[in-house]
Amino acid sequence: MGPSVYFYVTYVLCLCLGLLCVLLVSCWSSQWRGGFAWDGSALQFNWHPVLMVSGLVVLYGNAVVVYRIPFTWKQRKHTWKLVHAGLMIIALFLSFLGLCAVFDFHRGFHIPDLYSLHSWMGICTVVMFAFQWSLGLAGFLFPCSPSWFRSTLKPVHIWIGKAVLILSLTSCISGITEKLLLTLTGATGEPYNSLPEEAKFVNSLGVLIMVFGLVVFVILSKNKWQRPQTDNENTHLLLHEDVI
Amino acid sequence: MGPSVYFYVTYVLCLCLGLLCVLLVSCWSSQWRGGFAWDGSALQFNWHPVLMVSGLVVLYGNAVVVYRIPFTWKQRKHTWKLVHAGLMIIALFLSFLGLCAVFDFHRGFHIPDLYSLHSWMGICTVVMFAFQWSLGLAGFLFPCSPSWFRSTLKPVHIWIGKAVLILSLTSCISGITEKLLLTLTGATGEPYNSLPEEAKFVNSLGVLIMVFGLVVFVILSKNKWQRPQTDNENTHLLLHEDVI
Repeated sequence: MGPSVYFYVTYVLCLCLGLLCVLLVSCWSSQWRGGFAWDGSALQFNWHPVLMVSGLVVLYGNAVVVYRIPFTWKQRKHTWKLVHAGLMIIALFLSFLGLCAVFDFHRGFHIPDLYSLHSWMGICTVVMFAFQWSLGLAGFLFPCSPSWFRSTLKPVHIWIGKAVLILSLTSCISGITEKLLLTLTGATGEPYNSLPEEAKFVNSLGVLIMVFGLVVFVILSKNKWQRPQTDNENTHLLLHEDVI
Repeated sequence: MGPSVYFYVTYVLCLCLGLLCVLLVSCWSSQWRGGFAWDGSALQFNWHPVLMVSGLVVLYGNAVVVYRIPFTWKQRKHTWKLVHAGLMIIALFLSFLGLCAVFDFHRGFHIPDLYSLHSWMGICTVVMFAFQWSLGLAGFLFPCSPSWFRSTLKPVHIWIGKAVLILSLTSCISGITEKLLLTLTGATGEPYNSLPEEAKFVNSLGVLIMVFGLVVFVILSKNKWQRPQTDNENTHLLLHEDVI
């Protein structure tokens, strides 16, 4: 089997895990937490996990690895830069909507904003992501951006990209922990520490989210799965040797 | 400034952040949570965050980057393999003690084990770490391990190493979230959502732990900070091209 077969097996695994995460988090909100609304109620909160997992983890993770798909290598890199940037802005928009959902819910129930470690991590993640997207646009899509700026930015862009993914995963796992501890209190049903069905289901969702993230890191860690450099890009790389 | 100056600046930052994390988590347990004991009481639990942060994050993170210190490059790699493996076994031992602390505490208070997502993530992290250490010993320190095994194992070892660090960070942040939600309930003082002093202090510890982890990833992401390969190692690399 050629290396691209191994890539596609890993990539299909990544796609399936991503879809499964979106499916399970939607099922959690709709089946266990009462469904969705956009009216400042607890049902508006239910959009928060769905939008954050879909945007900040699944769509983000898929957008990160888009350059590694071998069939794209014969096509213009500029086209795939636009796909990468496009998927990322959708991911950022979903995350922003996810934040609106939780802030509206807090306002409706007079719950303070930004008190928990989860919220601190989550806000840092979205701000870093927005900063990364703007910097990427300025550096890699504006035609007038100077060559030295692109070559300096590339390793920074790659590192921030991985950092945002690590922060997203951490925010998700701490968010799930927080939500389960605040809702499965024993006041209206079985407490979290008796491991009711919902807890088993959502703990498994947390594990799946981590597995998805680690599969994305597998794809990123294989040098031979990188898109081959064109001559023009090689000139930049001579100026700056870090290719990660 | 040469590249090693940049390395040492980042490395000193990594050391300082690591020390600060150990200091702050010890301060949390001793000043806010009543100190330490090894008697099945809540004071035994207090060893858990200290041992996990010290072992699974700070010592682990430092052991990961030990090959990157330029002054070690003139010395035999075998010596530094022993240092790496030695630091890792201490980190694993501290993590194991940290698990004992929480299991003993649970037994004393009849709290179920392994119900939370944090505990699922934490157990996976320690099991994966123990597996990684054993595989590393068999592959890189046993003199009779075959060359093909070492070269195949190297990229897997590097990937699992990063995965364990990501899982450790996630386990720490979800663990801090869990502990603060379970203790700052408002029954004996201010609740977590009023952001009392302890919450601000421990949220900041969580942020510092993440910053430490991301600085370790900065060190790992710079190809030019890798230990140069010897001829013997290059032979292995020709057999297996992934150098991450």
